[in-house]
Amino acid sequence: MKATSRLAIIPLILVLTIAGVAQSADHPRLIMTKAGVEKIRSELGRVPLFDAAVERVRAEVDAEIELGIDTPVPLDYSGGYTHQRHKRNFFIMQKAGALYQILEDEKYANYVRDMLFQYEGMYMDLPVHPKERSYARGKLFWQCLNDANWLVFVSQAYDTIYEYLSAKERRRLEDNLFRPFADHISVVNPRFFNRVHNHSTWGVAAVGMMALVMGDDEMLERALNGLPRESLDLTAKDDDGGLFWSEHQKSGFFANLEQPFSPDGYYNEGPYYQRYAMYPFLVFAQGLHNVKPELEVFAQQDGVLLKGVNALLNLSDANGDFYALNDGQKGMSYHAYEVVTAVDIAFHVGGNDPRLLSIAEDQGQVLLDDAGFAVALAIRDGKAQAFDKQSLNLSDGADGQQGGVAVLRDGDEQLDLVYKYASQGLGHGHYDKLSFSFHEKGDEILQDYGMARWVNIEQKGGGNYLPENNSWAKQSIAHNTLVQNETSHFQGKYEIASLHHSDLYFYDDTNKQVQVVSATETNAYPGTEMRRTLALIKQDGFEKPFVLDILKVVSATKNQYDLPFHYLGHVMQTSFEHEVPASLMPLGEEHGYQHLYLEGKGEPASGSAQFSFLNNRRFYTLTSVADESDELLLARLGANDPAFNLRRDPAFIIRRQDSGDTVFVSTLEAHGSYNPVSESAVNSYSNIDELKVLHDDEDYTAVSIEDLGGNVSLFIVANTGPGESTDHKLEIDGSVFRWSGPYHYTDLK
Amino acid sequence: MKATSRLAIIPLILVLTIAGVAQSADHPRLIMTKAGVEKIRSELGRVPLFDAAVERVRAEVDAEIELGIDTPVPLDYSGGYTHQRHKRNFFIMQKAGALYQILEDEKYANYVRDMLFQYEGMYMDLPVHPKERSYARGKLFWQCLNDANWLVFVSQAYDTIYEYLSAKERRRLEDNLFRPFADHISVVNPRFFNRVHNHSTWGVAAVGMMALVMGDDEMLERALNGLPRESLDLTAKDDDGGLFWSEHQKSGFFANLEQPFSPDGYYNEGPYYQRYAMYPFLVFAQGLHNVKPELEVFAQQDGVLLKGVNALLNLSDANGDFYALNDGQKGMSYHAYEVVTAVDIAFHVGGNDPRLLSIAEDQGQVLLDDAGFAVALAIRDGKAQAFDKQSLNLSDGADGQQGGVAVLRDGDEQLDLVYKYASQGLGHGHYDKLSFSFHEKGDEILQDYGMARWVNIEQKGGGNYLPENNSWAKQSIAHNTLVQNETSHFQGKYEIASLHHSDLYFYDDTNKQVQVVSATETNAYPGTEMRRTLALIKQDGFEKPFVLDILKVVSATKNQYDLPFHYLGHVMQTSFEHEVPASLMPLGEEHGYQHLYLEGKGEPASGSAQFSFLNNRRFYTLTSVADESDELLLARLGANDPAFNLRRDPAFIIRRQDSGDTVFVSTLEAHGSYNPVSESAVNSYSNIDELKVLHDDEDYTAVSIEDLGGNVSLFIVANTGPGESTDHKLEIDGSVFRWSGPYHYTDLK
Repeated sequence: MKATSRLAIIPLILVLTIAGVAQSADHPRLIMTKAGVEKIRSELGRVPLFDAAVERVRAEVDAEIELGIDTPVPLDYSGGYTHQRHKRNFFIMQKAGALYQILEDEKYANYVRDMLFQYEGMYMDLPVHPKERSYARGKLFWQCLNDANWLVFVSQAYDTIYEYLSAKERRRLEDNLFRPFADHISVVNPRFFNRVHNHSTWGVAAVGMMALVMGDDEMLERALNGLPRESLDLTAKDDDGGLFWSEHQKSGFFANLEQPFSPDGYYNEGPYYQRYAMYPFLVFAQGLHNVKPELEVFAQQDGVLLKGVNALLNLSDANGDFYALNDGQKGMSYHAYEVVTAVDIAFHVGGNDPRLLSIAEDQGQVLLDDAGFAVALAIRDGKAQAFDKQSLNLSDGADGQQGGVAVLRDGDEQLDLVYKYASQGLGHGHYDKLSFSFHEKGDEILQDYGMARWVNIEQKGGGNYLPENNSWAKQSIAHNTLVQNETSHFQGKYEIASLHHSDLYFYDDTNKQVQVVSATETNAYPGTEMRRTLALIKQDGFEKPFVLDILKVVSATKNQYDLPFHYLGHVMQTSFEHEVPASLMPLGEEHGYQHLYLEGKGEPASGSAQFSFLNNRRFYTLTSVADESDELLLARLGANDPAFNLRRDPAFIIRRQDSGDTVFVSTLEAHGSYNPVSESAVNSYSNIDELKVLHDDEDYTAVSIEDLGGNVSLFIVANTGPGESTDHKLEIDGSVFRWSGPYHYTDLK
Repeated sequence: MKATSRLAIIPLILVLTIAGVAQSADHPRLIMTKAGVEKIRSELGRVPLFDAAVERVRAEVDAEIELGIDTPVPLDYSGGYTHQRHKRNFFIMQKAGALYQILEDEKYANYVRDMLFQYEGMYMDLPVHPKERSYARGKLFWQCLNDANWLVFVSQAYDTIYEYLSAKERRRLEDNLFRPFADHISVVNPRFFNRVHNHSTWGVAAVGMMALVMGDDEMLERALNGLPRESLDLTAKDDDGGLFWSEHQKSGFFANLEQPFSPDGYYNEGPYYQRYAMYPFLVFAQGLHNVKPELEVFAQQDGVLLKGVNALLNLSDANGDFYALNDGQKGMSYHAYEVVTAVDIAFHVGGNDPRLLSIAEDQGQVLLDDAGFAVALAIRDGKAQAFDKQSLNLSDGADGQQGGVAVLRDGDEQLDLVYKYASQGLGHGHYDKLSFSFHEKGDEILQDYGMARWVNIEQKGGGNYLPENNSWAKQSIAHNTLVQNETSHFQGKYEIASLHHSDLYFYDDTNKQVQVVSATETNAYPGTEMRRTLALIKQDGFEKPFVLDILKVVSATKNQYDLPFHYLGHVMQTSFEHEVPASLMPLGEEHGYQHLYLEGKGEPASGSAQFSFLNNRRFYTLTSVADESDELLLARLGANDPAFNLRRDPAFIIRRQDSGDTVFVSTLEAHGSYNPVSESAVNSYSNIDELKVLHDDEDYTAVSIEDLGGNVSLFIVANTGPGESTDHKLEIDGSVFRWSGPYHYTDLK
């Protein structure tokens, strides 16, 4: 029996070993696959963009190998050495692993292995990070979010050297590092992991990707559908005293896929965070696509992940810089590695859209994996087509019914008008319903301030959000939208704002001569209804298309209205006289007004006010219909800013006091140019002679635009609807206009 | 007798005709020559840069021909339609004439002829220009200067179609247009013509070039040597009540060549006006070279015209933008057509320096004449060599003894330190002795404000100098130099300033690790001597070379000293606490101070103050040795600027009260970078741990610089000299240092 039992044990060990081998023979599997790697190796040296990526990454990784491995005891916020070192480590491990697969040079596998074991040696004994600011402190980093970043990349690295490691080595890493690491950012920190939030997206991708590599179904389930409810403290309260996990609250990857994206692929926090979130979404989805094809992850929610890539690319200006909606840092663009990832994966799994290849060409780099290789190969084979960004309207909200963001574009002149009438956008949202920004050739003309933060610049508040993000950047007055009684929309309160959204009235870009979007906001100021209609109008006699802005306000009470235009550039001329104060005082006391200095104050000379400025060698003129009693304010940012955290940007503000119902009408023309080399100013004046409100009542608002050549055009917007009759008739000065649809545009003479 | 006399008359007519023919067979002769044109025609289609120029100009001229000829009645200042139209007319005539020569298409000759006759038809009856601002009003333009521009170009156009016209046509044009035109800008306006001034340079070139084409020796003499004294009202007074024409005053081309240029080719008004002046200098010189080779014009003044081209090109940053010394408009660069002209002519007649070809390549265009063709041909034949700008020191003054301008450069990092210790620079000079600016890769880091003007932008004061040019831009506090008692150098008075200049102490760029320039100013504030020593030091442990700035002040009286640093960028961090005022008040009342707001005020925490900022994604840190009682002021431009004529640029000012002798010591480091796409901040902190003055007396100033790695270096400058012994010895803390020469730099540990 003894002998038999011994013999009986042997097959069991054999089976276990064979199972281990069988599993290990399946790696890499996550974002590189065995078949993909074979193809890469066979074409290496003949695919320029991919070959360049290999060389660049090789140089970078070799330099790091030369430097030696350092896994310091965690100490710093982002920007500090230990933070940056651990961040760099996970990037380099991922790259070294890819190089090992591509080049079959063991030095890269050894490097990853040695670094992993250095982490393995320290992890179990590491306390939580010493910095206490985060609601969910990590162990390597001050917040779990960064630990999740680490695991997302390290899972890829592990996958690439999985077969290079012995089973014993794998067990040590999994038992002492990966599993406890995944537990820390999920089970131990459910408030981080078990939400619908960009942080959680990283959390579930991290746990899920490691689960796919390790073949751990429990971990995968946790990632896909969240923590089991029975594991949660269901009595936990959130900041407002409500229950943290409500009865129907979902979490995990699928919930995160469902909630923040609209059916059009708009991500409710805006493009800056969409860019950030897309990486874990797509890279985890790519892994699921490879390992669990039966889940059909890219078909989920009507293909929302691929729509998200399309939406993200479209929310960028002519340079590829993302519009700074909500908390967005200027300068972030589709050149970011997250978007390189998104584009490569979308091309690879999303039907090989050849327009994505031109974006990849502009990015100038591809991933060192199957997707990046597919892109590089297609570019080599001449398949790239231009990605001509068109006007588009993106709905917001999981149901597509919570407002949206529209971009009216003129491709010839590279003009973009970005109109935001969306929902709040979670904690990164700003209080700016019906605001817009305007861009020419990638330059901001009317800006969205973006966030008050220098990400990762340690000397600026540790690289984190600065106090002025709340006190200025989020406030309504910081945006090109109406402010009533010097109070932000929803009083600047998230709990109120998050309950509401603006509503689309109509969007129509079918006529490329007159593209229009209109939306309504009724909750920002209870009792006041705002409807803003923006048109991009291409008309003979004008050098470029101009913006027409009609903002109709209906209110039962008398209010002060401020309509700011955050122009960028230098004042050229004003049609109105203005006084400048002897000393500069803040414009107000709160809601952002405390940060603005009043630099000048004028009164409209006639029925309209013109304000022109020069930005990057081009001229712009804002023409506004003005009441005699309007105040025209020239303001500049910088008051109450002891740490010099705010840019000294200017604003032009139309102030209308003691008004109930009213309408603000403006045009913004881009015109002419100045060349400081030839010193020639071309077309430096507005082409508008007179802008007039011909009619304004509860049914219709009609505006006439007369140019210097005496041509007059008429724009009428119907104030009824949606849902009302689409056939309209309006008599103005004896002429009768009839049309169908919400607006009418015609020549008067 | 009757018959004989008839016969006698015939030969006379014949002789006249033959003389006419002989003369006309010599055209073109000015900047195109018969031989040159033949060569151009024979190579046409095989010289890419020239062929491209032909095509570009042809498209431009054809479009104008299509538009039709317009010579409107003159009405406007620069920027207005009639001004712009007449300006465009002369450019186009010159180009059309060149096309006629190159392409032999008579439509171009006809166009020039028709336009000239349209001018001929109106000129005699034209009154002086209706705008009255100029001291010398033109007829086509508001000032004779622009009329002279017209004639400089039209003389070239006339030259190209000279042979195409009949003798009768020529006579009509010369009698009714060219001669009276030349008279108006010379004989009629001697204050414009008969001076040494950039305006006069245009005047003499205009008259002289037309004289060369017409073969009129009297006009040529007028151009070369000025108006005959007997034609002048010698009792005329200038603005200050002195005689306008002093006894020994010279004028005309040769005098203008003599006076404003130093032996190194530096033009005393600075590069912006040198660029402007170079065109008439060189194009007239080219004409003289062709028609009057015996004058050897390019050899005059030891070849100063060609040296001038070299100096001008060297006074530009990494982008080719000229440093904004004195009245200079930012953005003006060696891409200007005047510099294209200068480079082409300098190459053609100045020994074919192959480095000029790389500038021409960067300019991307050549002239449509012999010189431009020579450049294009040489580029085609691969002869271009890089124009590596080196450090250099340019003397100022006709004798080279009136101070100068030095540029210390680091080519690897494209760092330029521009030090101005020159003479006043005539009416365009600013009051900024011993000021400097600092540039990296073509970005201004410490700026020279330049002029307060938008040239040719009509809505900004007619495109002319704005009041703030005097009240701000010219004042000392607008520059990076010392201001005593809130008063500009020389009290901001031209009559005083123009009598003085700073003096070079020494310049030494032989050691590329430590490049140094030092100069002295004793007249800006009588009783106060300033000596500023600037070094660009390349040292191990520092990412890039840093600037060391030692400004020693000796004064018998107690004064307030302000040392401003006009940084561009956003404040990152200060080592000192500072308070911000509740409202912004102007810093002072006059001498430019009335335009600065005080945004913050601090006191140095220790013996030094650090101030760091971010400019175009790069970090900079200024470290200054500070007294405990120093005030550190954060200022911003914009006060008392009702028309918004000033940029809202910032400044950091070190204020030292109640001091006699003192020394200001600072370093400026360029370091690190920020990438908003990867959101990574690299090397964002200063590498300097401590900056100290170890010794300071009438003989020596010694400064130690300790870096974060604990390395200490020592810089000693001898305060005696020039003219004193060059062997030095100084004991500091028991260590004895001995060296030869005005400075010593060594490692301490």
